Amino acid sequence: MAVRVGVLGATGAVGQRLIQLLDPHPDFEIAALTASDSSAGKPYQEAAKWRADSAIPADVATMTVGATEPDAVPTDVDLLFSSLPSSIGAAVEPDFCEAGYVVSSNSSNARMAEDVPLVIPEVNADHLDLLEVQQDTRGWDGALIKNPNCSTITFVPTLAALAEYGLERVHVATLQAVSGAGYDGVTSMEIIDNAIPHIGSEEEKLETESKKLLGTFDGASLEHHEVEVGASCNRIPTIDGHLENVWLETTQSVTPDAAAEALEAYPGLDLHSSPDPLIHVFDDPSRPQPRLDRGLGNGMAVSVGGIRSSTFGLQYNCLAHNTVRGAAGASVLNGELLLENGYL
Amino acid sequence: MAVRVGVLGATGAVGQRLIQLLDPHPDFEIAALTASDSSAGKPYQEAAKWRADSAIPADVATMTVGATEPDAVPTDVDLLFSSLPSSIGAAVEPDFCEAGYVVSSNSSNARMAEDVPLVIPEVNADHLDLLEVQQDTRGWDGALIKNPNCSTITFVPTLAALAEYGLERVHVATLQAVSGAGYDGVTSMEIIDNAIPHIGSEEEKLETESKKLLGTFDGASLEHHEVEVGASCNRIPTIDGHLENVWLETTQSVTPDAAAEALEAYPGLDLHSSPDPLIHVFDDPSRPQPRLDRGLGNGMAVSVGGIRSSTFGLQYNCLAHNTVRGAAGASVLNGELLLENGYL
Amino acid sequence: MAVRVGVLGATGAVGQRLIQLLDPHPDFEIAALTASDSSAGKPYQEAAKWRADSAIPADVATMTVGATEPDAVPTDVDLLFSSLPSSIGAAVEPDFCEAGYVVSSNSSNARMAEDVPLVIPEVNADHLDLLEVQQDTRGWDGALIKNPNCSTITFVPTLAALAEYGLERVHVATLQAVSGAGYDGVTSMEIIDNAIPHIGSEEEKLETESKKLLGTFDGASLEHHEVEVGASCNRIPTIDGHLENVWLETTQSVTPDAAAEALEAYPGLDLHSSPDPLIHVFDDPSRPQPRLDRGLGNGMAVSVGGIRSSTFGLQYNCLAHNTVRGAAGASVLNGELLLENGYL
Amino acid sequence: MAVRVGVLGATGAVGQRLIQLLDPHPDFEIAALTASDSSAGKPYQEAAKWRADSAIPADVATMTVGATEPDAVPTDVDLLFSSLPSSIGAAVEPDFCEAGYVVSSNSSNARMAEDVPLVIPEVNADHLDLLEVQQDTRGWDGALIKNPNCSTITFVPTLAALAEYGLERVHVATLQAVSGAGYDGVTSMEIIDNAIPHIGSEEEKLETESKKLLGTFDGASLEHHEVEVGASCNRIPTIDGHLENVWLETTQSVTPDAAAEALEAYPGLDLHSSPDPLIHVFDDPSRPQPRLDRGLGNGMAVSVGGIRSSTFGLQYNCLAHNTVRGAAGASVLNGELLLENGYL
Repeated sequence: MAVRVGVLGATGAVGQRLIQLLDPHPDFEIAALTASDSSAGKPYQEAAKWRADSAIPADVATMTVGATEPDAVPTDVDLLFSSLPSSIGAAVEPDFCEAGYVVSSNSSNARMAEDVPLVIPEVNADHLDLLEVQQDTRGWDGALIKNPNCSTITFVPTLAALAEYGLERVHVATLQAVSGAGYDGVTSMEIIDNAIPHIGSEEEKLETESKKLLGTFDGASLEHHEVEVGASCNRIPTIDGHLENVWLETTQSVTPDAAAEALEAYPGLDLHSSPDPLIHVFDDPSRPQPRLDRGLGNGMAVSVGGIRSSTFGLQYNCLAHNTVRGAAGASVLNGELLLENGYL
Repeated sequence: MAVRVGVLGATGAVGQRLIQLLDPHPDFEIAALTASDSSAGKPYQEAAKWRADSAIPADVATMTVGATEPDAVPTDVDLLFSSLPSSIGAAVEPDFCEAGYVVSSNSSNARMAEDVPLVIPEVNADHLDLLEVQQDTRGWDGALIKNPNCSTITFVPTLAALAEYGLERVHVATLQAVSGAGYDGVTSMEIIDNAIPHIGSEEEKLETESKKLLGTFDGASLEHHEVEVGASCNRIPTIDGHLENVWLETTQSVTPDAAAEALEAYPGLDLHSSPDPLIHVFDDPSRPQPRLDRGLGNGMAVSVGGIRSSTFGLQYNCLAHNTVRGAAGASVLNGELLLENGYL
Repeated sequence: MAVRVGVLGATGAVGQRLIQLLDPHPDFEIAALTASDSSAGKPYQEAAKWRADSAIPADVATMTVGATEPDAVPTDVDLLFSSLPSSIGAAVEPDFCEAGYVVSSNSSNARMAEDVPLVIPEVNADHLDLLEVQQDTRGWDGALIKNPNCSTITFVPTLAALAEYGLERVHVATLQAVSGAGYDGVTSMEIIDNAIPHIGSEEEKLETESKKLLGTFDGASLEHHEVEVGASCNRIPTIDGHLENVWLETTQSVTPDAAAEALEAYPGLDLHSSPDPLIHVFDDPSRPQPRLDRGLGNGMAVSVGGIRSSTFGLQYNCLAHNTVRGAAGASVLNGELLLENGYL
Repeated sequence: MAVRVGVLGATGAVGQRLIQLLDPHPDFEIAALTASDSSAGKPYQEAAKWRADSAIPADVATMTVGATEPDAVPTDVDLLFSSLPSSIGAAVEPDFCEAGYVVSSNSSNARMAEDVPLVIPEVNADHLDLLEVQQDTRGWDGALIKNPNCSTITFVPTLAALAEYGLERVHVATLQAVSGAGYDGVTSMEIIDNAIPHIGSEEEKLETESKKLLGTFDGASLEHHEVEVGASCNRIPTIDGHLENVWLETTQSVTPDAAAEALEAYPGLDLHSSPDPLIHVFDDPSRPQPRLDRGLGNGMAVSVGGIRSSTFGLQYNCLAHNTVRGAAGASVLNGELLLENGYL
């Protein structure tokens, strides 16, 4: 029987992508949609300006949108996916958790909180049990789990696959798609025939979230990884797909061939949205490319190419779909992990 | 009186840009145009498919294109600007030098040759005297001078400005415009809504040319700088302007304010095409941007922004117009330097 | 049992799209691939530079490419899909027909020949029987059928749906995607931040092919429709999807509501690749849009919006995917029609 | 001595373009800047987010922005350029006129009012004297003059040049740049790899404004031209420059050669911003193109190409820079016309 789920912030860009992924999902059934007060009470198709490249699901179209507060969500809903703006997420997600809901959130608030698991299932599923600490500490019946930022998700699986060589220093330059800023985030006048070498707070997210994701959980507390990460973030005129250039310095030397082997061998999980293979490795040094490769594994795969020895160690490029693997799909996958591990 | 000059490879993209810059130039007068055999004998306007965003100069339009060989160039021409494909440049540039012509070349061949000065006038004008070694060694009456690759030119002036702090390690990721590949170099199917993390041989050029440019000439031979440079090159959907992310590790620590001051204070030269200031420094971390800032200093300035302390030292972004400062304008500026120093 | 088919010109952009569509097709099995002499004898994955956004099918990858001549195609192949350059198509397609092959061709040669059916199955399936005239006239065992140009296919179904009102005059302006010119057809320097108001011979194709498609076949000869069509064709920076503005003057007046009803009611066919509905009608006047709507009906639907009364009669916009409905998918659909009608 | 001028709505995109054009203008001196109440009292560089591709003029940067009301503008200012949103223009422009200011406005309000001259100086300078009727009717000391919409300005000069052949019917399809919607008007998610076949109210503007511009003023009232105009408007991914496809039916037949001659011969005016030639005619059918040709005549020229006989009469394409000739430059040119004719 499908778990009844809700979407907090259902009218936004990530909310729409969540609905695209949840509507056909075998394990989940959309039972609640919330949005801002101005949308509450309206049918979804009226509240949302649907802009996805597939038709709005018929049963979702006519659902009534509720306010974003615990009382407005049916009590038989077990799991909430949150794509709220971070300031609103910070204000209301704890209310939902206190009211007993399990929240799988894409919002950036609380990602670095000590007792909030920040999870990419294929990388650090064991961090999930931090939820027990969380429930003890906060006295919640519900729980809060986060997925990382879209550009963090893109390169961290490649680090995890190479961790056996001893991660020391990572330089990462990102070429990020406009969808990462939301539907209205980047105007056309800003980006056509242009690039912008700055995305507010983004570099800090890559540098801190990666260490938490790669950290060690001993059952009681989480120790962050000591790898040093330096990021430089750029916005470019692509619709979807974040491309990243990585330089990696390791304690043990690693040849490009050995790296390719480790990346290809890095396992996915037996969860509905986890792709097989998790990481595609290209021989062609001009791949991966956003338009050609963002769809791999239904948008949930990571792809890697241009693996080479460099002046400073290992060098390669990686790519993932920023609104699927990097946002909505990441939250859904965390939901699947919660289900698999008996948290629902 | 204006120096009579010629353009080798006048019908290509850089050739056309050279004509745009030379036609109104106060010191130079276009007296010869060469191209491939199939174009030789035709009026320029027929041989070239003129695609620049200004009209073809009237007097150039009707000039007869010659073959690319010394006999086809009038003997009263003193200086040749070369934008030949590198394989052709390698074959014929020495012939012109032997025949007594001074060649200022943008072609990539011979840039790393021991006795060929690779020059950005504001950075290493003193390397020009390597021409004396060259003429001795090769027995040429003429001479060959090179400007570096377009993506090398963009970041090397910033390193020169910060050299006093002791350059140790540089990571540089480039976001390069399509014009850098020539008019037909990148198809629209390859680049719309896309990015390509590979440009053949480009990374090696940034890594080796930069050390030569920053090297020391003692009057007899050139010692390359010991700085380690690692590059990662990407093509993005912009028309003109290469944007670069730089991480710089120095022996002495340097604050962002001190770096900004050093960059702004770095002097230009009193040559026609050398802009004042040479380096624009932006406070706004979202600048420089290709479309907004590539035109600074008539396309000959370098601009810098986002100067910040990073995990690994200093971090900043820089930009230059790749077909002006990075190609045709670079060759013209070297021509001005040759004139100023009595080589014509 | 699946019909064994071949692809003539299998390495090009339309050839690759044909392979994408034919590989999973329930009725067809790829049994032969041909290309130019320089590719003949090589495995397909080596001969073709595969650029599609899905992986090359494994069994196709290792097939040996043959020369484009009848002797090189196995005799048990019944149907050939041709995406040859038109000059080559003109030279060799008749040879294949003479040798007994049925050829469903996307190439522009012979489209207007009197005895060659030019077919969009949902519009003029009855023209198929022109093949009997063709076989009589030419003495062929095989047969040649054509689909129209990609921009013709986009608007003709809408005219067919409205034909009951009496088609008199049509003005059509096209905004065409770069893929219509083939992979290398439009350089990025030509089209980024730009548009080109000219596509060689394209306007003539829209003006003449549409009259043939809408014409009447009496069993012996084809009378072209008398509607006057004037076209203006533009290339714009989109990857896939031709958008067209139509002004239609009819003998009987037609309201926008009646037009919408006629368009929505216009039937598809019970063939594998014919979508249901054939024509999507949008209320939102800003639709259809290339990126959002080209994928409707797996790229085989036509979409229409902005239906309004204008100064000159009826006005609307329409869209179709130019390399699916407008090229490879059109040829495949014609293949399905041939199969259904006993021509294989 | 320069006329002291002000800019109403100085912080917006057209306001910034007005400042770029007025700062170096020989006849005008910027003496007042107004904006919304939230900006009033601030230095311009703080109130405006300057996004132009040239540096903010130093003296303008530090000017204090005033409120958009007559009392806030110095009385020695003679001429106001208005780029207000139309709803605000409708509310306050009459107040300025009543207070004695002459207003040259780009805002769309009141363009079709009987006693408001809608002027392209090279087309209908004689309509200027409608101001006398206006001042009589309204009792204003000041005056209000309008320039038309950016897409109207692009094709009307070509109609004026061909008017001698008897204008009957015009079909015009537009491919409009994103800057026409203002800096934030079109998001990148809407337009990358896409086109939008709808711009609110735009078609009506082309259809009505063109008849007024081509109308006859007898000294007392204005009779609109009887030409029928049908427009279809599209937004495409270009930064600047509106490209238009025109079909023109005339009472007397006109050959392409005769049309080209009439277009080339159509005179400009002896005003500072009026280019010579006014209309560029290209032989190359692929021109004009937005990126290559929008800068002709400093952005004030109109260019025409692809002149051909069509099914329905004459057919051609035309182009103009939408924010220079089509907006800010149009208002400035009207200001020059007012000065020349003694209205200041």
